[in-house]
Amino acid sequence: MKEEIISNLKNIVGKDFVISDLSQMQSYLYDETETLLRPKACEDCVVVKPGSSEEVSKIVKYANKVLIPVVPRGGGTGLCGATIPLKPSIMLSLERLDKIVELDEENLMITVEAGVTLAGLLERLNKHEKLFFPIHPGDEGAQIGGMVAENAGGVNAVRHGIMRNHIKALEVVLPTGELVSLGNKLLKNNMGYDLLNMIIGSEGTLGIVTKATLRLYTKTSNAGTLVVSFDGRKDASLAVSKILQEGITPLAVEYMERFVALESAKHIGKVWPATKGSVDLIFILNEATEDDLYARSEKIVELCEQYNAIDSLIAETTKDQRNILEIRSNAYTAFKENVADALDIAVPPASVPSLIDDLIKIADKYHTVTPSVGHIADGNVHNFIMLENGKLPVCFEDIKEEMYKAAMKYGGTVTAEHGTGKTRKKHMSLQYSEREIEIMKGIKKIFDPNMILNPGTIVN
Amino acid sequence: MKEEIISNLKNIVGKDFVISDLSQMQSYLYDETETLLRPKACEDCVVVKPGSSEEVSKIVKYANKVLIPVVPRGGGTGLCGATIPLKPSIMLSLERLDKIVELDEENLMITVEAGVTLAGLLERLNKHEKLFFPIHPGDEGAQIGGMVAENAGGVNAVRHGIMRNHIKALEVVLPTGELVSLGNKLLKNNMGYDLLNMIIGSEGTLGIVTKATLRLYTKTSNAGTLVVSFDGRKDASLAVSKILQEGITPLAVEYMERFVALESAKHIGKVWPATKGSVDLIFILNEATEDDLYARSEKIVELCEQYNAIDSLIAETTKDQRNILEIRSNAYTAFKENVADALDIAVPPASVPSLIDDLIKIADKYHTVTPSVGHIADGNVHNFIMLENGKLPVCFEDIKEEMYKAAMKYGGTVTAEHGTGKTRKKHMSLQYSEREIEIMKGIKKIFDPNMILNPGTIVN
Repeated sequence: MKEEIISNLKNIVGKDFVISDLSQMQSYLYDETETLLRPKACEDCVVVKPGSSEEVSKIVKYANKVLIPVVPRGGGTGLCGATIPLKPSIMLSLERLDKIVELDEENLMITVEAGVTLAGLLERLNKHEKLFFPIHPGDEGAQIGGMVAENAGGVNAVRHGIMRNHIKALEVVLPTGELVSLGNKLLKNNMGYDLLNMIIGSEGTLGIVTKATLRLYTKTSNAGTLVVSFDGRKDASLAVSKILQEGITPLAVEYMERFVALESAKHIGKVWPATKGSVDLIFILNEATEDDLYARSEKIVELCEQYNAIDSLIAETTKDQRNILEIRSNAYTAFKENVADALDIAVPPASVPSLIDDLIKIADKYHTVTPSVGHIADGNVHNFIMLENGKLPVCFEDIKEEMYKAAMKYGGTVTAEHGTGKTRKKHMSLQYSEREIEIMKGIKKIFDPNMILNPGTIVN
Repeated sequence: MKEEIISNLKNIVGKDFVISDLSQMQSYLYDETETLLRPKACEDCVVVKPGSSEEVSKIVKYANKVLIPVVPRGGGTGLCGATIPLKPSIMLSLERLDKIVELDEENLMITVEAGVTLAGLLERLNKHEKLFFPIHPGDEGAQIGGMVAENAGGVNAVRHGIMRNHIKALEVVLPTGELVSLGNKLLKNNMGYDLLNMIIGSEGTLGIVTKATLRLYTKTSNAGTLVVSFDGRKDASLAVSKILQEGITPLAVEYMERFVALESAKHIGKVWPATKGSVDLIFILNEATEDDLYARSEKIVELCEQYNAIDSLIAETTKDQRNILEIRSNAYTAFKENVADALDIAVPPASVPSLIDDLIKIADKYHTVTPSVGHIADGNVHNFIMLENGKLPVCFEDIKEEMYKAAMKYGGTVTAEHGTGKTRKKHMSLQYSEREIEIMKGIKKIFDPNMILNPGTIVN
């Protein structure tokens, strides 16, 4: 990286907040994308850590002047290589924008800077008697700005939807450097085109989020976790469908194949509590009253039994609940060493069993397995393509392509919650027509005429 | 209109579905915008009524060839002149696309053609034991395509939000004529940029909606309507804030000044049930069980009493509930003859009482009154600017400008749910920076390079 650029960045943010030494830069060059899958990062970069939105704006304006890419970066927990630089770039870390700006109890909203981590947000809200924020994508090291940029999902989507539903306002530095406020503490706004929703999920290509105002909700404090076991995934899936049709909306409904649960439990030295059957549904409930919790648990078990559930157990103590959830959330890490790619397909919820059948058939055809877990009530399946002797399988691209095409058969998406980034963009044409992709490229160009922001991600 | 154009349109849709005679065309040239406020329609138009999405696509392709504007049109219930033609145009009515395509019980979704009216959708769902659609903007003559294009709101937004939250997929004819499907029966999709959300609320300028897939929810059937009376709007507003903070989310919370309620009741020959106080809150509840209904009603009254509520009554019979809701929904019609403009401001919910204070001060300054009703829990106030002797008041533009500026003080919006259209576009710069408006114009140009679709609306 040119000395002049480094020196100009130091003038903007102060010399302590610019890293130009490669050895100190490593942790800023990659995210959590699978090692063999992620693109190689360009190492001719400089890391800059602005301390204010105004500094972010100055950096972007400067980048437009010298035409060098800017790659905005949150907690680095992404899974699609969105923040891996492909060209010599300014890596712009939001980590110093870590203040909780305002907890507005009257409007039930919180405003935070982009670098506040999910852990930081939760810590603040845990101290509050009544209010909570529902989106939890798993890794609490994720920063709010990143969660906005990636339109994070997570287990609680069954009841609460996705990040997009809860973002009321953003402060954004546009790719041309202007600092703008989109939205406000408003529940409705129909003026002009909806630029707020265009920024959400745009993965740092249409703007750098510097501040976010999020909707908060009142806590319910009667929690329980229910594990219901089945012998077949079809029955499990039909039971979920029936439960939702009955007007029961658990916080989360997770699907896990038993061998995945056992492997995950072993990995973290715990015991999976269910013993009968081959697949499990995990229902996370959190209700207004204890009576509601019991009534809903009973109803869920009753409906599952109509679909041949063979066993059920309820965890009520915090310890037992945590045990189950830890095993669920380690399903990926337990396999990670052997995972080539963790897919992020979604299909219409009712099509999940057929999709999983198809995925297994494809794995069989290529003499491999494809362990599956998923946010089943959302139609979102995470199935793994496994490594072969520590390497990408010979037919890796074919396997993946066939799996994606299986999803397309049901009108599905290649990525439900992890994002397009750099690793999934080549499959965009499976899902979108030429004209749609052309429009997306046009939108990028309108926001970012010099193509400064996060090149190589999504459509640019 | 040139004979050649009329004849070519007849070739596409058949001669019975083209209207070129001005006397038969009148009802297609205006919407429900206030008479003195709406622009004058260009009468050199032709009305065409396609019978399929493919015909819509053909019409738009033809319009691009001969460079004539196309104005898509739903039920004509809009309030911002979005569908009033300013130039010689093809008025494209979606009325014949009136089929309910599929009620998908397993995925809790319904797919309808754009010309299905809200009444038609409700009629179909009323026949279903369990499922309902929550958005109700008031006039059941509204067509679903129009509700998508305008991102309709309505009273139930407190619990259910706005149209945008419930649209899973759209079939759209792009301004260049391509027929595309955006979204699907998916609860999560993070592939590429979100064109679906860009179309929603774009008021027929970025695409013509021909089909929509909407999320459905399970019915709750214990309904009650509560009227709580206060002596001051500040207390009423604080009570609403407190109720939401306590985790109670009624279906709707409406605010009505007493003199508005009395005038409205008189207008339709009914009696407003509350007698004490000067403003009323109307809480519409609909809960899973009768016990829930009572518990919530009691809690609401208790919380209102903490904020000096002076009277309350609950309507449980269908007749009594309907009486209250009819008086509420006639608040506008009761005054309509004397209304110059019904504003659609929203501010952060907690700022409503201050906003109303400001609005009244502005009205006082200009020696007029400004009756207010509103979706108070959403921060959305509809206050009227009154006519003077049947004419727009001399200072009409000043009054309006001052009222909008009052909204801006709280970070508000000029239009919460009625849309920008042609009547509110000149106030866009109050709310958005030059660069934001430039981006909106750029987006329009990307979707619609020939500027064919609905010119004069929003930014073009």
